[in-house]
Amino acid sequence: MNLILLEAEEVGADGIVALGRGDARARHVETVLRARVGQTVRVGVVGGRTGTAEVLETGEGGLRLACRWTGDAPERSRLDIALAMPRPKVMNRLWPVLAQMGVGQIWVVQARKTEKAYLGTHVLEPERVRAGLVEGLAQARDTRLPEVRVLGSVEEMLAASRAGGYAARLFAHPGENAGDWRGALGGIPSDGRILLAVGPEGGWTPREAERCLGEGFIPMSLGPRILRTDVAVVALLAVAGACWAE
Amino acid sequence: MNLILLEAEEVGADGIVALGRGDARARHVETVLRARVGQTVRVGVVGGRTGTAEVLETGEGGLRLACRWTGDAPERSRLDIALAMPRPKVMNRLWPVLAQMGVGQIWVVQARKTEKAYLGTHVLEPERVRAGLVEGLAQARDTRLPEVRVLGSVEEMLAASRAGGYAARLFAHPGENAGDWRGALGGIPSDGRILLAVGPEGGWTPREAERCLGEGFIPMSLGPRILRTDVAVVALLAVAGACWAE
Repeated sequence: MNLILLEAEEVGADGIVALGRGDARARHVETVLRARVGQTVRVGVVGGRTGTAEVLETGEGGLRLACRWTGDAPERSRLDIALAMPRPKVMNRLWPVLAQMGVGQIWVVQARKTEKAYLGTHVLEPERVRAGLVEGLAQARDTRLPEVRVLGSVEEMLAASRAGGYAARLFAHPGENAGDWRGALGGIPSDGRILLAVGPEGGWTPREAERCLGEGFIPMSLGPRILRTDVAVVALLAVAGACWAE
Repeated sequence: MNLILLEAEEVGADGIVALGRGDARARHVETVLRARVGQTVRVGVVGGRTGTAEVLETGEGGLRLACRWTGDAPERSRLDIALAMPRPKVMNRLWPVLAQMGVGQIWVVQARKTEKAYLGTHVLEPERVRAGLVEGLAQARDTRLPEVRVLGSVEEMLAASRAGGYAARLFAHPGENAGDWRGALGGIPSDGRILLAVGPEGGWTPREAERCLGEGFIPMSLGPRILRTDVAVVALLAVAGACWAE
């Protein structure tokens, strides 16, 4: 927790925040940061500004902070991810990771090889998703919550990607001959937007790949190694981000 | 498990392998790959060759395979990592991840901000380390076990890095002004070797950073976001590998 992330409704008009003693953030300030009265901690509001807060009170009565806003909300990332729904356990672990890496939108896609039951599971319940994302934002000192959409098929993903106005749409395809994704990324202005599509554990079907590549998605590969979904997502986002920023 | 990874002593001179029914690999072949008698699976020997194996027998009596070797051991990665020992739980999760990403050597370093007790924990016991690494190799279809060394201080890391003949030594330094790590990576021939040093959760001390940068380590940063150690390691290795291969 590198930022104490608050909900807008938790902050009074005077910038005062009161968190109960059982609150995880209050415990973090007290036991990890060990901030005493008069010291300051970094704070942010979900979707909003960042700043510092002076500790007014801590201990038995809970934590009281006086916030001072010094920074605007960080800009939303221009890199979006379309992720074929993985096993629920993996998806659950991925929420904080995706928010940490910084993505603008997260599309969870029902690919052909996605077990249908996965999309009905609790890991897609809004409050669970939000909790995972907020955890990742607090780690990365960001306040900008990624938008999450669930799309029922690759066709729906294609339609959404056409409407998205992307400067490049990348299609992660491990071990396959990759397209000139470096060249494509290098040519995109910093105010462009990129979509990265990542397949399910069993891979995209040939038909799904054909549909996406036929529509202009650029195949991207990091080499012949087969990475676990959670590892692949981090590696692909990091490389796409780094090659774009170059 | 994208490769059934065998120990050399498990393979008979005739290429026959017998795995008991309780063996995780036997269960994987039976229940996940659902390979029947006569079908083939991908196999490899730790530190050795890769190939295919025909299923001779499965079920109650365990799994019997007849291996045929078709490929040499993959070349050892020329990217090494020096990692300040993180919390044991994190290190435990990292063994398969590091083997999956493909590194040549893993140096576990006692940095100033590493809790001393961490290095005495069971996660550094050779059999545990090996099990984690083998899991990662089987995921990535590799057979080449990374070498693991434990180094007692940053000074020891510096000495080892000087002896290592590296074409570039990178020093991960989140949020700080980064050096020209892209330029450095771009100029390294494919038969060169790279060392990437990643600090502890609390960061390197100013003194440690000064010592490494003073010795020619190149600061590398992926931007201002603060990533969790396990996420940072994957992102840094992926970007270093991609920018080098460019």
